[in-house]
Amino acid sequence: MAQPRILAPADNAHQYPLLIKQLLLSGPRYNPDQEIVYANRSKYTYTDLVERIHRLANALTDAGVKPGDTVAVMDWDTPRYLECFFAIPMIGAVLHTINVRLSPDQVVYTMNHAEDDVVLVHDDFLPILESVKDEIKTVKTYIQLTDEKAAKSTTLKVAGDYEALLAKAGTEFDFPDFDENSVATTFYTTGTTGNPKGVFFSHRQLVLHTLAMTGSLSAYDEMPLLRSTSVYMPVTPMFHVHAWGVPYAATMLGIKQIYPGRYEPELLVDLLKEHKVTFSHCVPTIMQMMMGTESIKTADLSNWHVLIGGSALTKGLCDAGARLGIRMYTGYGMSETCPLLSVTHLKPEDLELPLEQQTNKRVKTGIAVPMVELEIVAPDGQPVPHDGEAKGEVVARAPWLTQSYFKQPDKGEELWQGGWLHTGDVASMEPDNTLTIKDRIKDVIKTGGEWLSSLDLENLISQHPAVAGAAVVGVPDEKWGERPHALVTLKPGEQADVEDIQRHLEQFVASGEINKWAIPEHIDFVEDIPKTSVGKINKKLIRDQLK
Amino acid sequence: MAQPRILAPADNAHQYPLLIKQLLLSGPRYNPDQEIVYANRSKYTYTDLVERIHRLANALTDAGVKPGDTVAVMDWDTPRYLECFFAIPMIGAVLHTINVRLSPDQVVYTMNHAEDDVVLVHDDFLPILESVKDEIKTVKTYIQLTDEKAAKSTTLKVAGDYEALLAKAGTEFDFPDFDENSVATTFYTTGTTGNPKGVFFSHRQLVLHTLAMTGSLSAYDEMPLLRSTSVYMPVTPMFHVHAWGVPYAATMLGIKQIYPGRYEPELLVDLLKEHKVTFSHCVPTIMQMMMGTESIKTADLSNWHVLIGGSALTKGLCDAGARLGIRMYTGYGMSETCPLLSVTHLKPEDLELPLEQQTNKRVKTGIAVPMVELEIVAPDGQPVPHDGEAKGEVVARAPWLTQSYFKQPDKGEELWQGGWLHTGDVASMEPDNTLTIKDRIKDVIKTGGEWLSSLDLENLISQHPAVAGAAVVGVPDEKWGERPHALVTLKPGEQADVEDIQRHLEQFVASGEINKWAIPEHIDFVEDIPKTSVGKINKKLIRDQLK
Repeated sequence: MAQPRILAPADNAHQYPLLIKQLLLSGPRYNPDQEIVYANRSKYTYTDLVERIHRLANALTDAGVKPGDTVAVMDWDTPRYLECFFAIPMIGAVLHTINVRLSPDQVVYTMNHAEDDVVLVHDDFLPILESVKDEIKTVKTYIQLTDEKAAKSTTLKVAGDYEALLAKAGTEFDFPDFDENSVATTFYTTGTTGNPKGVFFSHRQLVLHTLAMTGSLSAYDEMPLLRSTSVYMPVTPMFHVHAWGVPYAATMLGIKQIYPGRYEPELLVDLLKEHKVTFSHCVPTIMQMMMGTESIKTADLSNWHVLIGGSALTKGLCDAGARLGIRMYTGYGMSETCPLLSVTHLKPEDLELPLEQQTNKRVKTGIAVPMVELEIVAPDGQPVPHDGEAKGEVVARAPWLTQSYFKQPDKGEELWQGGWLHTGDVASMEPDNTLTIKDRIKDVIKTGGEWLSSLDLENLISQHPAVAGAAVVGVPDEKWGERPHALVTLKPGEQADVEDIQRHLEQFVASGEINKWAIPEHIDFVEDIPKTSVGKINKKLIRDQLK
Repeated sequence: MAQPRILAPADNAHQYPLLIKQLLLSGPRYNPDQEIVYANRSKYTYTDLVERIHRLANALTDAGVKPGDTVAVMDWDTPRYLECFFAIPMIGAVLHTINVRLSPDQVVYTMNHAEDDVVLVHDDFLPILESVKDEIKTVKTYIQLTDEKAAKSTTLKVAGDYEALLAKAGTEFDFPDFDENSVATTFYTTGTTGNPKGVFFSHRQLVLHTLAMTGSLSAYDEMPLLRSTSVYMPVTPMFHVHAWGVPYAATMLGIKQIYPGRYEPELLVDLLKEHKVTFSHCVPTIMQMMMGTESIKTADLSNWHVLIGGSALTKGLCDAGARLGIRMYTGYGMSETCPLLSVTHLKPEDLELPLEQQTNKRVKTGIAVPMVELEIVAPDGQPVPHDGEAKGEVVARAPWLTQSYFKQPDKGEELWQGGWLHTGDVASMEPDNTLTIKDRIKDVIKTGGEWLSSLDLENLISQHPAVAGAAVVGVPDEKWGERPHALVTLKPGEQADVEDIQRHLEQFVASGEINKWAIPEHIDFVEDIPKTSVGKINKKLIRDQLK
């Protein structure tokens, strides 16, 4: 069998490994005086950033950190965290971004599982660690982070205060070259069942994700999200998928960055206004909170572009944003995918419509970004038609997907099947390659050989004027395999019965939005719909209760 | 010694090799109906491009091409060539882009050295190949390219006509995955001495070069060269460093592309006007020719951005372009560097000046693009100060530099020293990281321990009103090591003597542009300055003649 001509080792002697330190070359070179702002507290330049990253590398080394060690961070969204994004992987250690919203038990589980050696912890999270102190197995040293003059006193074994350690550390660190497949970052993703699972990304993967991000967020004139003149403020936490990897791209391009600290809606809006922020990424809940503030009413938001992810951007939210002048886009990805897979894709003709009429396009999951292969497949692994109707599980190939779950290779094998990462999301794809996520595969209702989206049904039921909320799950059915079962909550003082809801749904049969057989026979009116700790409908619990 | 935690093979099972086929994913997905135009002859869509690439892969396979083979192309700048940029590497073969401007002897040398198996040749280049037919050693088959109804008859052993072979080939080719370090392209670079040398680039290198190009040419609002709404027309040949790699980036982004065929100045200007071209790259000579056409006088060029490379963008050319509304930028790189290393970098404040006053900034070699390390070093390899004065050889590290010269490892060892690619260019670097190329290292004059730029001296001498041209070389000097020796040609009817020239130069001593000791004692007035076949001053010959 003939083979391509592979470079012989001697012909490949000057290969340049892809390392995170290279992402720090160009931003400070282009824009040494560009600012990085910490909320209403402080700011510094890119030149300062570089010096502080060198100091941090020395401080960590002085504190005993070696290549291959794991250094964990528990902080709000701060320039300190940005420094950790670079310095920790750049010395060859692994950055573990701890999810500070987990329960103390889950936090300690992830710390022990990741085998953290050193932990950088903000005052506000000391109580969590102190409460589980005796269960923490591998940590040798803590470094304290504070926004006050002095860090809080603690019973943890502390090497010192971050700023004090940086102040006495050297300003030059000779960052080594090493294998680009070295692990750079790790963090834990939580499901409704079982322990958190650790995903991990290599230097190579983060560099490629960053480079491809400029291909998708910089080059499109219809969506000028990441541009040299952008002002960037993350509104999804840095512990979660490296704030979607945007801090790396923003730094590479030398863009002004605003780190908000805590997510207090009034503060976020004040920062938007003060710094004329042009680009953020955000989850719907926080966006709702920001849009509910008093001060947003006096903000000029006509140049604020927001990538919405985490959960679906609803038409209602997108419309409400458009009325304030906010340009929203849907981003799609997950912890396992670094995360970027696809983004809303607007064309020049889409922008000819008034903003309020662009919603239908903006709420779609969009088109896969450069270097990503996306497909939707049936349970047998075969692609389903791209007709905007047929549903399949979203599977992906790209150069930046987690290769497995840390120390859980069996879970990794479930994730990767046939050479594709299986997202667990169900979607349709239009002939123009636009993806629309319909459901989680474990929530989709398999009835009569068809896949019925529980989310679609919930959305339609919710449009009944008496309905406050709805949850639909599949329940076993001898004839059809599964049938939809709806739980409905009513607005205070409103009334409706099963037939009202069914009649309401029939209009969508007439308009072609659902099939006749999608209308549930089983509709229960309930006081509350069970939710998970992060506010999502707990469909597993509902299914268990209905059994 | 502690090591970073490298992904174990089992944890790296789903690594995604970087392959040129991935650059073809997103453009057709974003913009299937976007046009690719062939001069005033024909056009087709990105959907057609994809189908034709699949057909070409089948046609080449039918013609006996196997992975690891080398397929050479001799064509003008055409969509056919773009198809070859993709299809040939995508089947695992090596694309050899033959420099059609070489002498027949040099062409056959490169074909034999590269071990071409199949050659795609345009009618216009048949005479070259026929003239050296008996010396061609490895080629088994030729495929003919024509812009007429039928290809010219030839004595070469032809498998058929390109369009006919595509027409009967299958529309689906299953492009395989393989090692990302497989060679994708090769071509030959010529110096003033010796045989042409073959550089080569892997799939990985071309993918990374393409991705980083969007970081430098898309994200900067001051220089919107590569944007989704751009219209791109190359004006440096596709055989030369893959037209600077821009066709790959343009295709990845789904940008409209215009291929001009031959470089006829009137045709180029007509295409600019007809298609409202926004981005080209060009060498100064061709730019001069285009600016000399009649039809350019009626063109609106205010949205034409041109990256100038190959040789230095002079202030005169940049000024003349500005008067026509053309925005020029300097790009720096070479065949060995894929080529992109640095580009003019404008800041918002630079654009506040009228275009005519931006020249000083635009003619600088600019700032290194993302992922590139550039340094200027003394002969001992140590960096020289970044003060805008001190000169050093430009050395580079980046993920896309040729690893050696094909079958000439000794030359490769000269190229790579101490882990850095040595460009052979001498430059200064300003405190803001702006590079300015001063000379070729073999032409720089080493006098009294200092490096004196022959180009600087030539530029200053040329500003004397009587001078038509100047060439300066270093000649051995017992006391100073070397001293400058100038050859000067005068404009018709003008007169000047040695002292006139020296007095002329003294004003630049006063203004601080050169040192007193830079003024040559030896100035010869000559009829002609020796040039190479590509029109550059032949300094080697001048030095030999002066010995």
